[in-house]
Amino acid sequence: MSEADEIAASLTLGALLEVSGWPKPGNVHRTRDFEDTRFEHFLASAVAAYPVLRELAEAAASRDRVPLGRYLYRAVRASRSAHTGGNTNLGILILDTLLAAALARASLDRAEVRREARRLARETTEEDAYYLYRAIELAGAGGLRRVGKGDAPDVREPDRVLREGVTMYEALRASAERDAVAEDWVSGLRRTLRVGTRVLELSTELGDVNEAIVRVFLEELARRPDTLIWRKHGLRAALEVSRRAREVLRLAGDGPVTRCRELWRMDEELHERGINPGSTADILAAGLGYACRLGMRP
Amino acid sequence: MSEADEIAASLTLGALLEVSGWPKPGNVHRTRDFEDTRFEHFLASAVAAYPVLRELAEAAASRDRVPLGRYLYRAVRASRSAHTGGNTNLGILILDTLLAAALARASLDRAEVRREARRLARETTEEDAYYLYRAIELAGAGGLRRVGKGDAPDVREPDRVLREGVTMYEALRASAERDAVAEDWVSGLRRTLRVGTRVLELSTELGDVNEAIVRVFLEELARRPDTLIWRKHGLRAALEVSRRAREVLRLAGDGPVTRCRELWRMDEELHERGINPGSTADILAAGLGYACRLGMRP
Repeated sequence: MSEADEIAASLTLGALLEVSGWPKPGNVHRTRDFEDTRFEHFLASAVAAYPVLRELAEAAASRDRVPLGRYLYRAVRASRSAHTGGNTNLGILILDTLLAAALARASLDRAEVRREARRLARETTEEDAYYLYRAIELAGAGGLRRVGKGDAPDVREPDRVLREGVTMYEALRASAERDAVAEDWVSGLRRTLRVGTRVLELSTELGDVNEAIVRVFLEELARRPDTLIWRKHGLRAALEVSRRAREVLRLAGDGPVTRCRELWRMDEELHERGINPGSTADILAAGLGYACRLGMRP
Repeated sequence: MSEADEIAASLTLGALLEVSGWPKPGNVHRTRDFEDTRFEHFLASAVAAYPVLRELAEAAASRDRVPLGRYLYRAVRASRSAHTGGNTNLGILILDTLLAAALARASLDRAEVRREARRLARETTEEDAYYLYRAIELAGAGGLRRVGKGDAPDVREPDRVLREGVTMYEALRASAERDAVAEDWVSGLRRTLRVGTRVLELSTELGDVNEAIVRVFLEELARRPDTLIWRKHGLRAALEVSRRAREVLRLAGDGPVTRCRELWRMDEELHERGINPGSTADILAAGLGYACRLGMRP
């Protein structure tokens, strides 16, 4: 298998493992669908992005500048046309396009991947931003309307980006405060890479990938309020979910967290209230892709 | 996306949708693992085969003879090294390698794909048979020891195939009576293509891919005893499972079969007894790949 295929396969599997992480409270997973977006839609999206990620990895390995925005747009377009549901993977692909390019240029070492990701992010242009905005528009992402209300144009105006000369880096930096995906992209995937390392460690230790995935998801929720919940339901709701995650981890102790009754109750309740920790899930999906590239095998 | 990528993505998604078909009684699915082989192992296997299927489709489109056996072996090897479980996709890949090659050479028309598949199957050589045997060995497939006890060498003796000049077509023809996958391969994928057409129709009609998958699985079980059950547990057990499938379909009537309590009971019972309708699932996975190539979108 070529290195570009290794990268594409790892990131694809990361997205599949993430949506199969069961039960990740509030998210779509094996036994939970949203009204318009179902588990199968995530499977189809993940596979559809594969050839675009491979091509991106190939281009990144051989060319000096990689049109990250355009690849992002193409990956979102391929995903959209592979299923009939709502937004499944915009956040994942924002992270995965950068991750694929960085992996194609660096060794697997975390610090090196991060350095390369930061460099690639800073090199993005207005054209990348234009395609980012078009990708956001195409994905029909929920709760993202407010991205860029700071010093970048509104997401509904991709043409203004070109006119005003805002780069993808600047656009995402302007959203970083309210969007964990944007924040992580701008940072050179710090959190994604940390999460990937952690889940690899834990799955090796536990011998159970699903348990490791759910546990790391809860750890991340416990550590940081989810920004999708924050944008849609307010900071208070996001902090409450973090508190619940800490509570579940406390109750589970050293035992398997997926057997903890409180976790299933939390999943039930978040779904009833329509509360979806989507940003944390995006980081986890990209992190799982890195873990797979590091050699994590279910 | 290139045509080879379209083919690989379709067959990969077919395998993912199949294992996610829920509840397909007796099989691994979203909420059922086998002791050593889990849902995640199927995800990893499906993704790992993607680049091999793409390369095979590319080769089939441009070259006259395609080393089907060697691609099968490579796909099985990639799948094996992507996870730590048991055999996940040998049967699927036997069908999918032929299907990928036929799709790369024909239009999407069922009769034409079938004609091409038959031609490709008949053109296989001793080398293809050698790699088929090695693939079977590598997969550690359950219940397959007896393949070829007729007029082809035992699967544990891949070298004898070369010495005796048995082709892949002859080897699989010798197993066709006791193995639905071999039978379908030899026939030019008749059942795979029919199942794919049916599931596409039904999922369009019902607007629910999972419901369509489970229903077609039951229809196939009802129609023909599963040959993996037959080999492992005897014909009587296989016929009993077919009878149960008919009963579930009768009870569900025109309503959603996945809501039928008897289906969940059947799943429970088959898992308790270790009865796995694996051949029927393999045909379904390949059929779903064809359906996806025809444009089925979850």
